[in-house]
Amino acid sequence: LSPSSFRPVYWLGNETLRVSAALFAENRRRLCKELKAKDGVVPQSVVVLQGGEQKQRYCTDTDLLFRQESFFHWAFGVTEPDCYGAIDVNSGKSILFVLKLPESYATWMGEIFPKEHFKEKYAVDEVQYTCDIVDVLSNLRPSTLLTLRGQNTDSGSICREASFEGISRKRELILHSVAMQSRSIDVLICDFCCAQSVLFPFFLPYSLFQHYCYNKGGMRHTSYTCICGTGNNSSILHYGHAGAPNDKTIMDGDMCLFDMGGEYYCYSSDITCSFPANGKFTTDQRAMYEAKSLSAFVEGVKWTDMHHLADRVHLKELVKISILIGCVEDMLKITTSQMFGQSDSESRRRKHSPVQRLAEYEHRAQSANPAQSCFINNQVLARFRGFGGVRVEENIAVTADGIEVLTCVPRTVEEIEKF
Amino acid sequence: LSPSSFRPVYWLGNETLRVSAALFAENRRRLCKELKAKDGVVPQSVVVLQGGEQKQRYCTDTDLLFRQESFFHWAFGVTEPDCYGAIDVNSGKSILFVLKLPESYATWMGEIFPKEHFKEKYAVDEVQYTCDIVDVLSNLRPSTLLTLRGQNTDSGSICREASFEGISRKRELILHSVAMQSRSIDVLICDFCCAQSVLFPFFLPYSLFQHYCYNKGGMRHTSYTCICGTGNNSSILHYGHAGAPNDKTIMDGDMCLFDMGGEYYCYSSDITCSFPANGKFTTDQRAMYEAKSLSAFVEGVKWTDMHHLADRVHLKELVKISILIGCVEDMLKITTSQMFGQSDSESRRRKHSPVQRLAEYEHRAQSANPAQSCFINNQVLARFRGFGGVRVEENIAVTADGIEVLTCVPRTVEEIEKF
Repeated sequence: LSPSSFRPVYWLGNETLRVSAALFAENRRRLCKELKAKDGVVPQSVVVLQGGEQKQRYCTDTDLLFRQESFFHWAFGVTEPDCYGAIDVNSGKSILFVLKLPESYATWMGEIFPKEHFKEKYAVDEVQYTCDIVDVLSNLRPSTLLTLRGQNTDSGSICREASFEGISRKRELILHSVAMQSRSIDVLICDFCCAQSVLFPFFLPYSLFQHYCYNKGGMRHTSYTCICGTGNNSSILHYGHAGAPNDKTIMDGDMCLFDMGGEYYCYSSDITCSFPANGKFTTDQRAMYEAKSLSAFVEGVKWTDMHHLADRVHLKELVKISILIGCVEDMLKITTSQMFGQSDSESRRRKHSPVQRLAEYEHRAQSANPAQSCFINNQVLARFRGFGGVRVEENIAVTADGIEVLTCVPRTVEEIEKF
Repeated sequence: LSPSSFRPVYWLGNETLRVSAALFAENRRRLCKELKAKDGVVPQSVVVLQGGEQKQRYCTDTDLLFRQESFFHWAFGVTEPDCYGAIDVNSGKSILFVLKLPESYATWMGEIFPKEHFKEKYAVDEVQYTCDIVDVLSNLRPSTLLTLRGQNTDSGSICREASFEGISRKRELILHSVAMQSRSIDVLICDFCCAQSVLFPFFLPYSLFQHYCYNKGGMRHTSYTCICGTGNNSSILHYGHAGAPNDKTIMDGDMCLFDMGGEYYCYSSDITCSFPANGKFTTDQRAMYEAKSLSAFVEGVKWTDMHHLADRVHLKELVKISILIGCVEDMLKITTSQMFGQSDSESRRRKHSPVQRLAEYEHRAQSANPAQSCFINNQVLARFRGFGGVRVEENIAVTADGIEVLTCVPRTVEEIEKF
């Protein structure tokens, strides 16, 4: 899978990352292998996937910035909208379907490329026009079309199943894209995070970060609406939304929490740094900053176990700085920790791992019930009201032996103050 | 309407533009006035508008960057998603409906504001929760609910009509938002363009432009996917799309065409500059650059007349530089100009005015028919193949006397070379 071993390579020049089309060929191969091994998948099946569509802003003709559907990217690595892809499970043969644009569109879109162009660009076995999809698929004489349908467990939404005028009713549903996740993606993400860590000085305002990602990294998208909280806004997990659009002026003495990630060729990074705006931690800021843990994941460890471990560490640290008083084991029994964190299901839904979060405690302490509130030292807690929050997010590679931290930014109090 | 005369004011600090909520109050007042004057609008009507919704990327839980529906912004100036607004036509009373968020959302969203907060922030007469919309509207005892529905003539799409569980079937459709366009918007846009022109050094790469807009202008959005074409890409009207994402390296000798606009509080600017990458025009580049016109619009002039005038000017200029030979009037008779431009309907649909475009001639010349091609000097044309394109876009205010150019960037060859 090394970039040199397989052409073509996606590359935006200069320091941007090279991604070999071999990645997608490998993903398709593994998908076919798994499907063949799967009970109930009949011979001569053909996988049909539909890519993302170019959408417009409301009823206008203003195109929204296109971002490919992740599962389609996973299988084909195609950047253009409005495509379909088919994979013959038996032979592994891949067919990409692209829009047939009239020559007059050249005025708007630039050169209208022939099918050969896309065949070469994406290293697929065949390229056809979407308008011919019914004929092309019929000629394959598939016993079944396998489409993708399933619930996204983060959002609860159902992914859109491939559909086109004339699609046969004779089809089965294959598993949701989650089932397609693979080691090969992981490898690429690692490369990407390493690259990003080297590229990004993380102590940047959001718009400059965006510029930096684009200019240095070729990243047309950020991974999400970045969160640049300062002061008490840094305790708001999704600060930066339309009602609170990262518009607070940074004040001397504020803690800053910058949760930002760039996205290159559909691969996202997600890193958070917390630091004092003026470069010098106060005693309380330092105490809160250090009350965090990066617990050692290993391959096979359960998510919920990690969650509970992190709770334990957080509670211990909060006892150390006297916000909580009493025995941590007692607290755990009555799930005191829940008042400082979201519920398991919320946590899973929102993708904030326990090691990523700490100290967004202010809102939650208010809803503590009597059994919980006996552990709270209100006098100390009051001192921290308005303090904001601390969060550190790393991108890590989980291996059989433990983890490898891929994020390369100043992390300790000493490193940050020096920086 | 001056910012000081009316509170509150939308302002993102520092050098960003101040927009008074008086603008939206004035828009609502004028809407009611026009509705009252309109035949067929029954007394006790209530206008109901639905704002834009927060959407997610495909089936994921990743929020897309929210941008308000323009007509809702026009009437209420509200930045939050998922709102409704009602206006009692008789009294002019305005009611804003906002989402009732559970207190637990504070963890994600920050402070959950009470209704009073929005009443003050947007200077509406009343704020209610969207969950109460049926009761609140019923209590107004409206004879009719007026909703907005109509075709967007740029895109051909139909705007989304306000709708909610329990909406009465007893309603009429009011005109499309285009009918709401008003002088007060124009005034604001003028202010905005002036501000932008002063703020923006236009000779910037796209990502830095984006940073500049955000950092200096508080602009969370660009007006559209910016077009940064160089060399022959500068002849592609909508270069910058997903299949050609502004990724060409700028070469010495290239013409650059940067078509970029920032958007502040839903007001968009749209300015294009063309210039040689190395700062010095060649003879051909100069000739092509100067073969453009900014014809004098005046209030009431027809769009199509301007189109034809521009065609005439372009043809004359192309004769001057010997790409065309013959009599311009003869060319106009056989609409030679069409081979260098889009059709009238395309032009209207795509919003590219004749004064905004020139010389994306290469693709088009290839489709010239025999009657047209006799005017083409192929030898000279060959010299310009691969040259790219030149486009200049200004933001202007049209008055009874003519136009006022609001864009303030180096425009003449001399100004650009000096810059």
